[in-house]
Amino acid sequence: MTSPLKMNREEMILFLEKEFPQYLGEITEVAEAYSLLRLPVDTSHLRPGGTVSGPTMMALADVAIYVALLSKIGPVALAVTTDFTCHFLNKPQADKALMAKARLLKQGKRLIIGEVELYSEGDAETLVAHVVASYSVPPKTN
Amino acid sequence: MTSPLKMNREEMILFLEKEFPQYLGEITEVAEAYSLLRLPVDTSHLRPGGTVSGPTMMALADVAIYVALLSKIGPVALAVTTDFTCHFLNKPQADKALMAKARLLKQGKRLIIGEVELYSEGDAETLVAHVVASYSVPPKTN
Amino acid sequence: MTSPLKMNREEMILFLEKEFPQYLGEITEVAEAYSLLRLPVDTSHLRPGGTVSGPTMMALADVAIYVALLSKIGPVALAVTTDFTCHFLNKPQADKALMAKARLLKQGKRLIIGEVELYSEGDAETLVAHVVASYSVPPKTN
Amino acid sequence: MTSPLKMNREEMILFLEKEFPQYLGEITEVAEAYSLLRLPVDTSHLRPGGTVSGPTMMALADVAIYVALLSKIGPVALAVTTDFTCHFLNKPQADKALMAKARLLKQGKRLIIGEVELYSEGDAETLVAHVVASYSVPPKTN
Repeated sequence: MTSPLKMNREEMILFLEKEFPQYLGEITEVAEAYSLLRLPVDTSHLRPGGTVSGPTMMALADVAIYVALLSKIGPVALAVTTDFTCHFLNKPQADKALMAKARLLKQGKRLIIGEVELYSEGDAETLVAHVVASYSVPPKTN
Repeated sequence: MTSPLKMNREEMILFLEKEFPQYLGEITEVAEAYSLLRLPVDTSHLRPGGTVSGPTMMALADVAIYVALLSKIGPVALAVTTDFTCHFLNKPQADKALMAKARLLKQGKRLIIGEVELYSEGDAETLVAHVVASYSVPPKTN
Repeated sequence: MTSPLKMNREEMILFLEKEFPQYLGEITEVAEAYSLLRLPVDTSHLRPGGTVSGPTMMALADVAIYVALLSKIGPVALAVTTDFTCHFLNKPQADKALMAKARLLKQGKRLIIGEVELYSEGDAETLVAHVVASYSVPPKTN
Repeated sequence: MTSPLKMNREEMILFLEKEFPQYLGEITEVAEAYSLLRLPVDTSHLRPGGTVSGPTMMALADVAIYVALLSKIGPVALAVTTDFTCHFLNKPQADKALMAKARLLKQGKRLIIGEVELYSEGDAETLVAHVVASYSVPPKTN
């Protein structure tokens, strides 16, 4: 399910830095089929045992779907997460950046649903987590 | 995440007909990367408004992941669903068979997690539903 | 979160028998705080091993939230399930009816979210499954 | 589903401060029926619009179930989140602490499933979010 982009990577970075300055991760790619984010892992993200914490992974996935969503509907809308489901699959590598690749499953007028695959940089075959989340989009005439 | 098959399509059909005779759908493909099921839609699956009911879609997805799982671990194990999350995305077409394409996201010793994309036959680009579900697998020495 | 009822048990049964005749379960209670459904278990619901199938439990839970929702917004609206998450907790008793107790977690104008506890009749302390699901409600002026 | 406590509030705080020092929130109650956490909200948790961010709510809920789980199985086990589902229900109040009340739905030998209700302090009737999550517990003989 791909529709044309309304924001490219540069526009996305400018928008997020202005509106959402504390966002997690770097915007690596904004493409029609998906958006890709990268989180350099430092010790503040690590749990005892040397693994990235679940909440850090969920926070990165949330930004990744938000980026995929904005890239398709443009910077005007205020989207709100309504549900968020994460399955933790494998332990991420502590010395590799965490990647989050998001694509939209549904782009409705009021409800947008996206999916994220998280993996350690360089090993996209071994998913560390999988997320599906829904976002409510306000009507345009609001 | 693909591992070799322990059951092919013919073995799967024989196994299900013996152990789980009321199963929903036809086994279309059993491959390393995915399993594909097909449900010919008749009026018993339809809701008022001419759409396949949500519980029918979820039941088909449950069988689809079960098939993908059995194809990888073989016919011996008794797997139990532990969680099941479905997002309904688009209305399926009432006059087309419902397809369910399942792949495993994680194949652990105790926990297997799979994903299903559901679509109306001939239109794999428009997902009608998306499922992620976990299955608990008993230890081998049981 | 309780709001007044717009349909009582008798009105609910008449409505469902007319609009949704194949619905699963008996409507036991329609109250402000919750709705309660009861499914007499017969062999058609049983899997090998003598347990009620997961899809049967999910189908009953779907009706239970739908009843709770209709009781609060009235019989006019056409609600559509948008997401459905089930956790399977304990094996239900094969010789007891399955009960589904639903309450609404959120009653928004466009989105209604409900929760269901499933248990075997007479043993409400031992949950057999737990469901959270969202329903999209069309605007009133449609 | 209540079983006796293996850790009280003071033991829990000591354990978390040693093993998991960056944990979010204050441990308010550790009881047989539930555990209650409290997060004083400051500006670092706020999004534009003055609301607590979704990831902050999910992180607090994750700790709350972890506390409920440890209180029942004791401080020895290393539990790992396997799935996490959150529904966002209402906007939390920006000037009130966020409360997270967790209870266990299932306490199995290998799998523990818990539920969390999140609300703004003083308004437990209006849920701001609802979480269900599963934790895998390693065998005791590890």
